[in-house]
Amino acid sequence: MSIFAGIEAGGSKFVCAVGKISSNKDKVEIKDKIIIPTTTPDETIPQAINFFQSIHSSTPLKAIGIATFGPVDLNTSSPHYGYITTPPKPGWKHYNFVGTIKEAFQIPIGFDTDVNGSAIGEYRWGAAKNLDTFIYVTVGTGIGAGGMSQGKPMHGLIHPEMGHMFIPYDSNKDNFLGVCPFHGNCLEGLASGPSIQKRWNVKTASDLPSDHPAWDLEADYLASAFANCILILSPQKIIVGGGVMKRKEIFEKIRVKTQTLLSGYIKHEKLLNNIDSFIVPPALGDDAGIFGAIALAEQAFKKSYP
Amino acid sequence: MSIFAGIEAGGSKFVCAVGKISSNKDKVEIKDKIIIPTTTPDETIPQAINFFQSIHSSTPLKAIGIATFGPVDLNTSSPHYGYITTPPKPGWKHYNFVGTIKEAFQIPIGFDTDVNGSAIGEYRWGAAKNLDTFIYVTVGTGIGAGGMSQGKPMHGLIHPEMGHMFIPYDSNKDNFLGVCPFHGNCLEGLASGPSIQKRWNVKTASDLPSDHPAWDLEADYLASAFANCILILSPQKIIVGGGVMKRKEIFEKIRVKTQTLLSGYIKHEKLLNNIDSFIVPPALGDDAGIFGAIALAEQAFKKSYP
Repeated sequence: MSIFAGIEAGGSKFVCAVGKISSNKDKVEIKDKIIIPTTTPDETIPQAINFFQSIHSSTPLKAIGIATFGPVDLNTSSPHYGYITTPPKPGWKHYNFVGTIKEAFQIPIGFDTDVNGSAIGEYRWGAAKNLDTFIYVTVGTGIGAGGMSQGKPMHGLIHPEMGHMFIPYDSNKDNFLGVCPFHGNCLEGLASGPSIQKRWNVKTASDLPSDHPAWDLEADYLASAFANCILILSPQKIIVGGGVMKRKEIFEKIRVKTQTLLSGYIKHEKLLNNIDSFIVPPALGDDAGIFGAIALAEQAFKKSYP
Repeated sequence: MSIFAGIEAGGSKFVCAVGKISSNKDKVEIKDKIIIPTTTPDETIPQAINFFQSIHSSTPLKAIGIATFGPVDLNTSSPHYGYITTPPKPGWKHYNFVGTIKEAFQIPIGFDTDVNGSAIGEYRWGAAKNLDTFIYVTVGTGIGAGGMSQGKPMHGLIHPEMGHMFIPYDSNKDNFLGVCPFHGNCLEGLASGPSIQKRWNVKTASDLPSDHPAWDLEADYLASAFANCILILSPQKIIVGGGVMKRKEIFEKIRVKTQTLLSGYIKHEKLLNNIDSFIVPPALGDDAGIFGAIALAEQAFKKSYP
């Protein structure tokens, strides 16, 4: 049986699940799942290990995939590969995530950022099936993005941090200074959930009615960011999830504004005539992350036993 | 003998060369080279073919690589693969570049954009040796960029057009509207050679003295662009060539401004302490393009005879 495990490690909760991948590999079925609050490694990790061990003892897991909050060290030749490095979350600094899980199970361990995980989930079983170059963006508490370039997760020097890109900003139109502690008015500073809350003085972005100017401004910023992603990466699709994007009307605004910004310069029918199928929500919805963690396990297994 | 040919097809001239790749593959020696003005396909292409044919008849060429101005169709499954599609240059619209050269020689033909070509040249024999993810940017008449992601030239939906990315623009500091016919004040609109000429009313950018404010503004825009590239792609190096970059002092300004913009957010020693070896001029200088075209030939040959 092809049983793989996944950990979607978020700043507030760990989703741990075990899934069975069908023999033709085009489906995954979740067999068991728990959610654990993310407190400290000493508290949270043993609960995850116990959960997987209870299954592993009767049905051996083939591999475990970890899609985690970061920043993380993804460089396989680094002595700190598999670590969470310098996260804002207390208690997790220089935490050897892969090493700890590997020691407990002695099976292949996959490891990537939470957004790269979601991207890989969408690639295996969602909106990015059969694509080789795409990005997955999440717009929520922060703005994160991952993706694949030519069939491989995007890594490079470290890994993309697209949420912090610099975009045009007109202080005559928006005099809010942004909430990013590093950059002020980078994309995350201007367009994340907390920036919407602070700029418009609301408890959550979803309190704002659909006709509120907040949504036009939000779409302006995201359209600039997506236009830049198109110009820099040339993705075949942009998948956008996260809390802020639950407001579905915003998709249409972003699509129109992205086309307007590009001004027909990139002559591809997907951008010119089919942008509805180019900027899309995740097909796996909120499950992209945990499915992605399971896909990371599958990859790690294949790498160990090619 | 490993004799490969390259065509660096630019908007004003074609550089055609034949190179011998050393048996350990770490060197290429140019054996013969001509420069032909780029007029129309009917005039320019036969001259290139004649040049290569005169060599091919005595020393068979293994493959020909084409690194060309564009836009081009790089999608190998498209019926128009190998075409120059809709260039601003008259006479070259929907020109079947690969098909024409292939018909004349019946050997493998490599094909990519001019900047991807230069990027591959730097990868094989220059500043990007042994890297897998980097970008090559040229700042001249336009701003073009190509690169490799995880060891493969960046393609995707079409190919990157980083020169047109949107960057922060403060109209209180710079009230010039930009020269890009598509986007006005995108990066190319604000920071290309022609934009410097028009903004400061000079014949060429090199007429401006080193202490002119033009260079600080230029470095501001390029630093924003490079910060975005770092945040979106996570390259291991940014190689910057082109006419505007002949002004070497600008490198130091760009490096400092890029670090300032990133504010230490990306914790990697190359960005924090070694940015001098991260943002660099091309090691091959003006030869990156033709070396790259020869590298494309080498790749095409390997693909045909693995």
